Amino acid sequence: MTTAQTERTAETPAPNLQAIRSAHARIRPQIHRTPVFTSESIDHMTGAHLFFKCENLQKTGSFKFRGATNAVLSLTDEEAKRGVVTVSSGNHAAAISLAARRRGIPAWIVMPGNAPRAKRQAVESYGGRVTECEYSVASRDAACKILQEKTGAVLIHPYNNPQVIAGQGTAAVELLEDVPDLDVIITPVSGGGLLSGTSIAAKSMRPQIRVIGAEPKNADDAYRSFASGKIEPASKTETIADGLRATLCPLTFSILRQHVDEIALVTEEEILAAMRTLWERLKLIVEPSGAVSAAIAIHKKFPVEGKRIGIILSGGNLDLDQIPFVRASQ
Amino acid sequence: MTTAQTERTAETPAPNLQAIRSAHARIRPQIHRTPVFTSESIDHMTGAHLFFKCENLQKTGSFKFRGATNAVLSLTDEEAKRGVVTVSSGNHAAAISLAARRRGIPAWIVMPGNAPRAKRQAVESYGGRVTECEYSVASRDAACKILQEKTGAVLIHPYNNPQVIAGQGTAAVELLEDVPDLDVIITPVSGGGLLSGTSIAAKSMRPQIRVIGAEPKNADDAYRSFASGKIEPASKTETIADGLRATLCPLTFSILRQHVDEIALVTEEEILAAMRTLWERLKLIVEPSGAVSAAIAIHKKFPVEGKRIGIILSGGNLDLDQIPFVRASQ
Repeated sequence: MTTAQTERTAETPAPNLQAIRSAHARIRPQIHRTPVFTSESIDHMTGAHLFFKCENLQKTGSFKFRGATNAVLSLTDEEAKRGVVTVSSGNHAAAISLAARRRGIPAWIVMPGNAPRAKRQAVESYGGRVTECEYSVASRDAACKILQEKTGAVLIHPYNNPQVIAGQGTAAVELLEDVPDLDVIITPVSGGGLLSGTSIAAKSMRPQIRVIGAEPKNADDAYRSFASGKIEPASKTETIADGLRATLCPLTFSILRQHVDEIALVTEEEILAAMRTLWERLKLIVEPSGAVSAAIAIHKKFPVEGKRIGIILSGGNLDLDQIPFVRASQ
Repeated sequence: MTTAQTERTAETPAPNLQAIRSAHARIRPQIHRTPVFTSESIDHMTGAHLFFKCENLQKTGSFKFRGATNAVLSLTDEEAKRGVVTVSSGNHAAAISLAARRRGIPAWIVMPGNAPRAKRQAVESYGGRVTECEYSVASRDAACKILQEKTGAVLIHPYNNPQVIAGQGTAAVELLEDVPDLDVIITPVSGGGLLSGTSIAAKSMRPQIRVIGAEPKNADDAYRSFASGKIEPASKTETIADGLRATLCPLTFSILRQHVDEIALVTEEEILAAMRTLWERLKLIVEPSGAVSAAIAIHKKFPVEGKRIGIILSGGNLDLDQIPFVRASQ
């Protein structure tokens, strides 16, 4: 997304709590107010009080529908009528597709020709129009550029976009409305949209809260960027948490440096163990990327004892034929 | 359970709505008021409006905790202090164990020595004291009888017990409080406790409602009993819905004949397909037995078009290493 999509830079103003509250008012009729689950057994296991914000139960199966809906509804009628475009084969693509359909405008989704069939079908089931490209950033950006020029559609980047960030922040607003006295809040970090929105909302509503970004050790670019003070490229991204392979952009990095206390890492084994715990104890389907935030608390990557910890379970989309911790029985 | 446990007969008075409401008042502080989920995509798929009562999210992972808690709390202090006993290796055993622990009394659980380790561990994690027996009804009943004589513990049968039936009926009360205008309500049927309580509550609160019992074709004894007018034994019970292998008792059969409109059957393939749909669309872990009621609606075993249909998802306990529709990926 370097050429076509990085139009906004660190100079783009970050949304504040007021922008997040405006986003909330705008999207509220479209989204689910997702429930907050607790589990006596996981609390017992950790010695903490965990509050799981179930964005796996959000429309399209992830928090991405919040930001996508806010961005689509923020367009003027003039902009909107030409439609929207994005490059993604994951949860953002599905979210943009449904948000656009709800507004009655077209959504073009640029994805590699070799993307998994299930992901393409999900996008198409929400009305997204898939445009295939080669599997390279250059090819993807070129396809996106051509589409924009041909159609006049507005690009909605998955995280380098203040409206998207403001929308993602509404999950933390709801969580803190439901559980005001949290000590800690944890979300996964990839491109940084969810963590940006969460950290702005959480630090504004409750300044003493600790905000932690959760990242797989096998895709630790945000962790390294925090350490070095500049955006580090992804070096290896062989993680089961396939939603967490993007890297920060200047906008999200500047927000994170201001509002996030810590990026914590978990191993692949810890992600899978946490995901299994969530399935068994909460009876919820959580995708690997969504389990990374829970893994930080379950595997005690910081002092959790006695703490009240909010955890955003970011999504629940995965291929049930490819569940990694399951052995076949038939 | 023929000798030791079939102490109550058809002459035992069935609970009425008042008994179910009393049970509800008694157990309310102990149980979760489980949410009702809906799914636009499943509604679109069926042409109906489906309301899923999520008893997989109940404590101990199934509706059984309602009946168990009511039965345990209905004991006098004199009875309670000697503890309770039951024969079960499934959800009822876990439910009795936790209900007893909450009252501070012992629970003895008779189960075959060859029961799956995971089930035994679940019972023990809730404080149940496992007593092993041979895998035969005679051995099980003998072990139960000996325990009762030795300890004075009160037997709490999984369904041949009016307090248990009244407790199970509270799920339907909550569902009809949340969605009063249902046309149909569906629960799975095995021994008939849940269906008995549901049918009494539903027909009392909303006389025009249609009550359907859902049963696997491969364990169709309730269906055949309905047809013949007498309790038919289970002939084959090779079903993935391992919680639905019990047969009706005179008490539940008499209630069902009075209040239930129809027993409907589904194949193993239909159960698995429905279970997968629930996992994918609701993002909920539902066990095969719990998916049987949904399968009736999803596979349109009666005219569903335009109907408002309440479906009790009875439980969410299963061994994640043994998920039948999953192929291994690692």
